[in-house]
Amino acid sequence: MEFLQKEIKLPGYSRGFHLITQQIVDNFPEMRKIRKGMLQVFIQHTSAGLTINENADPSVRTDFDSFTDELVPENFPRFIHTYEGPDDMPAHIKSSIFGCSVQIPITSGRLNLGTWQGIYLGEFRNRGGSRRLVLTAFGSI
Amino acid sequence: MEFLQKEIKLPGYSRGFHLITQQIVDNFPEMRKIRKGMLQVFIQHTSAGLTINENADPSVRTDFDSFTDELVPENFPRFIHTYEGPDDMPAHIKSSIFGCSVQIPITSGRLNLGTWQGIYLGEFRNRGGSRRLVLTAFGSI
Amino acid sequence: MEFLQKEIKLPGYSRGFHLITQQIVDNFPEMRKIRKGMLQVFIQHTSAGLTINENADPSVRTDFDSFTDELVPENFPRFIHTYEGPDDMPAHIKSSIFGCSVQIPITSGRLNLGTWQGIYLGEFRNRGGSRRLVLTAFGSI
Repeated sequence: MEFLQKEIKLPGYSRGFHLITQQIVDNFPEMRKIRKGMLQVFIQHTSAGLTINENADPSVRTDFDSFTDELVPENFPRFIHTYEGPDDMPAHIKSSIFGCSVQIPITSGRLNLGTWQGIYLGEFRNRGGSRRLVLTAFGSI
Repeated sequence: MEFLQKEIKLPGYSRGFHLITQQIVDNFPEMRKIRKGMLQVFIQHTSAGLTINENADPSVRTDFDSFTDELVPENFPRFIHTYEGPDDMPAHIKSSIFGCSVQIPITSGRLNLGTWQGIYLGEFRNRGGSRRLVLTAFGSI
Repeated sequence: MEFLQKEIKLPGYSRGFHLITQQIVDNFPEMRKIRKGMLQVFIQHTSAGLTINENADPSVRTDFDSFTDELVPENFPRFIHTYEGPDDMPAHIKSSIFGCSVQIPITSGRLNLGTWQGIYLGEFRNRGGSRRLVLTAFGSI
């Protein structure tokens, strides 16, 4: 039984959805020793989020972005938390709709994702800057 | 301490929300040996999802379905990922709104759900076909 | 390696979003012995939810509340599960959008949240009453 933990920083991404699976895997090679277990990726921010979706066609990420902007509009008239800019309060809500962590099974040292699944970073601020992740992997070795 | 993992296939379900708690439990009897722990159910697809909600009245699942179709409409004019059919891109977004995994505490060998809680499969494609789940249970024995 | 589990009851909260981080931490001091691990907070109800968001300015919680009421309106014309009151079916859907659990890394005995992150209870019923939580913490000691 093993418990591994690591904090990493993502470079600043533009507003939108970005595939970060490879960055997670490359930054956490220790995970390979786990036979049956789980990886959690946790983002320590409230205006960005993590989700799992289609890893191939970039048009899916574009559509996530345009749909999400319509779902949580910057001009929602009843927002009162507006002093950090029009993108701030929608970013908070988007973060909670998608969530701030993903939990993925590990099998034989690899993420046991479906063929078309990848990890998305949702960057919901115009200038979110670098984002911190806590990676926790655990399981039998 | 024990780590158990199993992959199962669900039969094809019609588009909508379906209660699958009993199928999970029946397919994973090994889970009963865990005293204090957790079960993860992870779906390896990006156009279906998992969530926990009311396990009794089927009208709740019907309302989930009609509301979700309104929330993420097939005719959203800015979708560009449309070549797999009008139900494809909404299915991806619904999958990420509800999520692709649920994590449930295990206590004395049983899922420690509330009285009214059950596991829902959200099938968001018109013809999603069979869906693969990875079940991971772990804890003290 | 340690697996800790505890059930607690929250007092009844008014409809809206409420910061409950301190209540979780205060009710689960045993968690401090975990060096690298994870805490799950699981709510055993289908008309309330849990999420992680901004822990400082209460206006964020107010905006969560007013936006969520607009996103899932009580007067959605196609709801058929209406006999428990107009706040019931929207509460079920909000619960699944935000989720019924949060998983947070534990590092050196503490929740490894970002500076601005806190745990929100989303109480989606007008009179939800007391809510039950299952706390599960595990990791290396």
